[in-house]
Amino acid sequence: MKLQQLEPTTTAGRKFVELAEMHAAEAATRAAEHDRDGTFPVEAVEAMKASGFVAGPIPEEFGGMGVMTVSEVGVAVNRLGRTDASLAIAINMHLVTCLIATRLLRGAREAGDAEQIAVLEGFMQLLGARMIAMANVTEAGTDVRHPMTEAKPVDGGWRIDGRKIFGTLSPVADIILVDARHQRDDGTWGRARAIVTRGTPGMQVMDNWDALGMRGSGSHDIVYDNCFVPDAFLLPSDAWGDVSEDFLIVGSAGQVGLVATFLGIAETARDYVANMLQTRTKQPSGKVIASRSGIQHGMAELEIALATCRAHIAENHARMDALLVDRPVASVTEDELHELTARAQITKLVSQRAAIDVVDKALELSGGAGYFSTSPLSRMYRDVRAGPFMQPFSPNEAYEYIGQVALSQPLDIDH
Amino acid sequence: MKLQQLEPTTTAGRKFVELAEMHAAEAATRAAEHDRDGTFPVEAVEAMKASGFVAGPIPEEFGGMGVMTVSEVGVAVNRLGRTDASLAIAINMHLVTCLIATRLLRGAREAGDAEQIAVLEGFMQLLGARMIAMANVTEAGTDVRHPMTEAKPVDGGWRIDGRKIFGTLSPVADIILVDARHQRDDGTWGRARAIVTRGTPGMQVMDNWDALGMRGSGSHDIVYDNCFVPDAFLLPSDAWGDVSEDFLIVGSAGQVGLVATFLGIAETARDYVANMLQTRTKQPSGKVIASRSGIQHGMAELEIALATCRAHIAENHARMDALLVDRPVASVTEDELHELTARAQITKLVSQRAAIDVVDKALELSGGAGYFSTSPLSRMYRDVRAGPFMQPFSPNEAYEYIGQVALSQPLDIDH
Amino acid sequence: MKLQQLEPTTTAGRKFVELAEMHAAEAATRAAEHDRDGTFPVEAVEAMKASGFVAGPIPEEFGGMGVMTVSEVGVAVNRLGRTDASLAIAINMHLVTCLIATRLLRGAREAGDAEQIAVLEGFMQLLGARMIAMANVTEAGTDVRHPMTEAKPVDGGWRIDGRKIFGTLSPVADIILVDARHQRDDGTWGRARAIVTRGTPGMQVMDNWDALGMRGSGSHDIVYDNCFVPDAFLLPSDAWGDVSEDFLIVGSAGQVGLVATFLGIAETARDYVANMLQTRTKQPSGKVIASRSGIQHGMAELEIALATCRAHIAENHARMDALLVDRPVASVTEDELHELTARAQITKLVSQRAAIDVVDKALELSGGAGYFSTSPLSRMYRDVRAGPFMQPFSPNEAYEYIGQVALSQPLDIDH
Amino acid sequence: MKLQQLEPTTTAGRKFVELAEMHAAEAATRAAEHDRDGTFPVEAVEAMKASGFVAGPIPEEFGGMGVMTVSEVGVAVNRLGRTDASLAIAINMHLVTCLIATRLLRGAREAGDAEQIAVLEGFMQLLGARMIAMANVTEAGTDVRHPMTEAKPVDGGWRIDGRKIFGTLSPVADIILVDARHQRDDGTWGRARAIVTRGTPGMQVMDNWDALGMRGSGSHDIVYDNCFVPDAFLLPSDAWGDVSEDFLIVGSAGQVGLVATFLGIAETARDYVANMLQTRTKQPSGKVIASRSGIQHGMAELEIALATCRAHIAENHARMDALLVDRPVASVTEDELHELTARAQITKLVSQRAAIDVVDKALELSGGAGYFSTSPLSRMYRDVRAGPFMQPFSPNEAYEYIGQVALSQPLDIDH
Repeated sequence: MKLQQLEPTTTAGRKFVELAEMHAAEAATRAAEHDRDGTFPVEAVEAMKASGFVAGPIPEEFGGMGVMTVSEVGVAVNRLGRTDASLAIAINMHLVTCLIATRLLRGAREAGDAEQIAVLEGFMQLLGARMIAMANVTEAGTDVRHPMTEAKPVDGGWRIDGRKIFGTLSPVADIILVDARHQRDDGTWGRARAIVTRGTPGMQVMDNWDALGMRGSGSHDIVYDNCFVPDAFLLPSDAWGDVSEDFLIVGSAGQVGLVATFLGIAETARDYVANMLQTRTKQPSGKVIASRSGIQHGMAELEIALATCRAHIAENHARMDALLVDRPVASVTEDELHELTARAQITKLVSQRAAIDVVDKALELSGGAGYFSTSPLSRMYRDVRAGPFMQPFSPNEAYEYIGQVALSQPLDIDH
Repeated sequence: MKLQQLEPTTTAGRKFVELAEMHAAEAATRAAEHDRDGTFPVEAVEAMKASGFVAGPIPEEFGGMGVMTVSEVGVAVNRLGRTDASLAIAINMHLVTCLIATRLLRGAREAGDAEQIAVLEGFMQLLGARMIAMANVTEAGTDVRHPMTEAKPVDGGWRIDGRKIFGTLSPVADIILVDARHQRDDGTWGRARAIVTRGTPGMQVMDNWDALGMRGSGSHDIVYDNCFVPDAFLLPSDAWGDVSEDFLIVGSAGQVGLVATFLGIAETARDYVANMLQTRTKQPSGKVIASRSGIQHGMAELEIALATCRAHIAENHARMDALLVDRPVASVTEDELHELTARAQITKLVSQRAAIDVVDKALELSGGAGYFSTSPLSRMYRDVRAGPFMQPFSPNEAYEYIGQVALSQPLDIDH
Repeated sequence: MKLQQLEPTTTAGRKFVELAEMHAAEAATRAAEHDRDGTFPVEAVEAMKASGFVAGPIPEEFGGMGVMTVSEVGVAVNRLGRTDASLAIAINMHLVTCLIATRLLRGAREAGDAEQIAVLEGFMQLLGARMIAMANVTEAGTDVRHPMTEAKPVDGGWRIDGRKIFGTLSPVADIILVDARHQRDDGTWGRARAIVTRGTPGMQVMDNWDALGMRGSGSHDIVYDNCFVPDAFLLPSDAWGDVSEDFLIVGSAGQVGLVATFLGIAETARDYVANMLQTRTKQPSGKVIASRSGIQHGMAELEIALATCRAHIAENHARMDALLVDRPVASVTEDELHELTARAQITKLVSQRAAIDVVDKALELSGGAGYFSTSPLSRMYRDVRAGPFMQPFSPNEAYEYIGQVALSQPLDIDH
Repeated sequence: MKLQQLEPTTTAGRKFVELAEMHAAEAATRAAEHDRDGTFPVEAVEAMKASGFVAGPIPEEFGGMGVMTVSEVGVAVNRLGRTDASLAIAINMHLVTCLIATRLLRGAREAGDAEQIAVLEGFMQLLGARMIAMANVTEAGTDVRHPMTEAKPVDGGWRIDGRKIFGTLSPVADIILVDARHQRDDGTWGRARAIVTRGTPGMQVMDNWDALGMRGSGSHDIVYDNCFVPDAFLLPSDAWGDVSEDFLIVGSAGQVGLVATFLGIAETARDYVANMLQTRTKQPSGKVIASRSGIQHGMAELEIALATCRAHIAENHARMDALLVDRPVASVTEDELHELTARAQITKLVSQRAAIDVVDKALELSGGAGYFSTSPLSRMYRDVRAGPFMQPFSPNEAYEYIGQVALSQPLDIDH
């Protein structure tokens, strides 16, 4: 059975996905080593800079490839996920930032907001010049809408203090977007985004990522201790805790690569075990294992889970592009964004779980062979479990959010 | 949350789906009565003849609406399934026959096969003139590839003897396509399709359909007892038991309405219970039931199952049209048909089960109200369970088939 | 494979279960008719009075059979559930009342509470004389801890006003225990239990039960309209809304028959379909259907669900008897009762769902035969879905309760 | 919520389980280290020899503790599984061998088979003297009923040639029972069991176990290359491929520790995450995480899975002891053994999967904390997945076997 894979739909997208496949093939040769040693695939990101892949979703006017769809970023990350899931979720951090910045610029141009246009064009220049950006939002003991990291006003700017975890891509990021809270004049808290450039004093990547899986993703803690940020680099966004438009874009478009990675893992698990079953034989009959009826039943279960994973992502991609790409930014209502985000969270819940099920079934069908450390399946088993931890919603929170949107009830996802 | 429904994509399709929605609204007013009494909605089919709906998937040259996609037949049947699932699966019998005949004619014209063209054009004329056709394949104690109904040569034609079950649409069908076996000169069995017109002596609709659900579908037994068919009306197809191209088209395109009906049931169950939860209150708080966190969690589970149902169907529709509509008939390989059929069977397994889960969850969220005979949910609970019985594969057989296709193993689905 | 059934453990229990099996065999002959017509099996209850079965869980000193375990009531109801689930849940209403009254008397005697002893001994005399009792608690629009039915003080007693639903066993109950609220002197609400005898003016059984399944259970609405109850017949229990000891006994011991009934349905579904598969043959091979590998796989799934249903119930039975029967009443702590109730609710969630799955799988394995109205499986499909509606917790509430007990958090099951 | 754990039922069993708890507490201190380094806990087995634990299931007449039930071996292994699952499955290898040998001796004594009695008493002396035994059955590319390892007659005995995998406990085993095939005079193959003592020339433990989990179990390959075994040490059993009584005892009683280990993992995962949730707080509310409704729902799901795991094992234990311990050996029919084995395989399928689900849910509830290498949950996630690989049936084979036993069909589990 031929793989029924996600495909790009535009010329720029096809070129972008071809590059992804090339980088994926290269990464395949080193992924096991990075996994074993817990090292970040710096060389892969270098190659992506050289090929222009990292500027895929940047408009051509800024030196990018001009990939404008959300879906094609998903397709490209899917290809990377097939050989190196750590690399996929890491570079996805950057690609999503490109996507979001491009959309923000489009909105600013629609609105004719000169100041915003200037700031964002500057940012796009940096991304077009192949600098690497990442968001740094997660903290222990709170959710992403309530950062405890704090920005305090100091002379000419702000000092940032706090500690972030799960800082995926941190070994190579040039620009880090740090969510922080800051006290407003009326005593309430606002949430701001600080732009910190690599090497700023007071900012330290802790080099401490050591996890069950995704070991090459460089998801280190980052500590900010009196880290100075100039006034222009602190972008205030919303009230602390708000479910803002910004948050909803992260919760919808921002999920695309995160789910595509796990589809990639599942696809590879499928191919790997199908090949094993079709070539290995078993006594006493000596026939290929694939000829056994129990095995065929199990393989059907695997294919069903894989198809579920892919179908959700395909439908979600179509909705994403229809709402976020084909429509003027200002025409999209908050209700539409909530429905898109609820749908994206459904896709995330179902497809990441389906990917886990595919790997589990592949292990089962391997008959024990997949349990050895040297088997690619054993790495997939560890990597694929990372899915449900991905921000901004834990599975429990996602259920609450989906139910509330479905029933048009007030949002209350942390009660 | 607004329903994210399947949509038609062509002008003809949009008109067709609009008619479906009109007929669905009419059928809604009588569905409960037909369910209670086990009567067939003859008046609904009459209205569909009057509106031209029944000739939707017939080319305009033969008087039809010219709906050429497989997917849009699915969308139309989906709309009917929302209010009267019995009517939906019944008329689907006819619509699928139109689809398949149109494709056969397209193939014959591609090939320049004059004889086939003549036969099929004649058939299309009848369908364009709004005659109603149905296939009559299922028998007790055997599978659809091995009909025990027999065609024996007699003077000037054949006599048909046998008994069929699940003859959905039989109360109004003008033309019945009866699968039968016939002994060939070499002693082996062939499988043929006899065209029997309503009222032929020896053919009797038993008027005995009395089931748990789908009570208005008219799925009576039909007995053929020395029923004469002229030579020209017996179309030999394949070897008895073969998985033929014909069989694969039924197993892929032929499933579209069967799954769309159950999506329709699920959509209505969702809307019904969501409305109930948003309007009914509960003591001691007096707040709407929808405000409760447990209810929101349950509603999220319902939405997830519904999204899974829809995503599988949407992806399947796209593949159907790409292979069966956009491509020349002769260009489609047997392997491609097997993959399409395996994919369609995955969709059937998952989406019909998901529809069952949606109705089950709606019942649960109704808190007991849905269990009363007068509740639409109680009819849905009975109707929706019919899904997994739909031909040509039982769930157990579908698993075997999918596994064998996935692993490129010899087909053996009844061992 | 021989059925691995629940068994009684005492001499009295064995006799009681034997009677249950006799009554089950009789009920089998009329269950389909009562189901079709929605009539209550009055004759079955009469037979149970004649045999003494209805006084099974009443001490011998009051004329009962002296069955003292909770588990054996479950086993007996399980046997009835195999042939007539409506009868099983109906008579269970009465048997549970016997169990609870017996335990209350035991507690009163332990404590030497003469007044309580007198009241309860009087009640036990009535039950020993084979009068039929039922609790009448459920109302639309509120939960069982917050009855809106009200008891207001009048001269010499109370008037009861309100409407109850799901009054299972109402066609034959002699004594009805009605939960009501009453305003206390300090303005707060208390919850009381009124003892209403059949035929009291102002009390009307509405004879309106018409549901998807459990059609013979007589679960009519009962309306109380200025229904007088003497002072001595209003037993004040707790604060309105409290999770009291009384409530916990209902939520634990009170569940035993409710889950055992559904196990009984599942057991019969299993036997029915296993027999069908082992005797019916299928073409073209002509071998019994049971010989097919897909069918065997499905049967294994059925057996697994059935074993899960039974294992949960067996373990739960052991815990019930250990805590509620073997221990002095006063020695059981509230924490222990909560743990027992949480465990019972887990059993209810899992075993009722497993029973639904067994019937679903039996339908699937029947290949369509089970879908006909005349098939016992189609009645089972309707009856078995009643399980999750059983009081006092809906599934959503049960999850909340279990989670709160597991994590030692404050109870809050209706937020 | 207090853990509702499996408990021993006899005096000897209680002492045995107390020792298990002591050894479990000791093992807890080194389990993470053995896991990291892939080293076998030799010191733990030494301690078990010193305490007499390894002779637990050996009759007192041979110097053992006299634990005679199957269930109590399960309970003891369950305690070990809570802190060191590798150690648990390793020593279980030995304990099961003790159980089986004891049963064989009982059977021989019943039958008065002097020769068998002598051999088995000799073997029991060794076990009573605290020698460590293991079975060595699994090979790549065949199932356990069809060993390809071969015994060929040589002067005074046999030479053994072959390679075994998954040789759990191999670092410390003194006596290895090696399944092999041997050609009989009539040319057919028989299956025999060779007793190989550690250090025999030609037998080499490959020290190559390096897996995803169960890293301290010492499950090395063992190569037999012209390894001599005296005549008396080759016990012929059955025809090659037969499902023999011997096989059924392994498939039933032999599973007890294998499933109990995974229950132990699940119990520890539950306690670990429950403690975390009840003590860690989360912003912005600052309340303990356990207070959140989504978390409570997730915890209920965990408890349900854990209860399912435990309920299946408890019921299975009762059946084991009733058939294999309380009954004379000769009175147990082959049908009864098949039913017991089918039931044990159901327990294995359900309880090992439930244990996987518990660990998965604990990871989810940990919110990411459990994914770090240093978290005990990350080791549990790797260890718990070993369950479904345990012999003698893969999950696919187990489904076939259960279905065939349930439907009284001929056994055919490798077609």
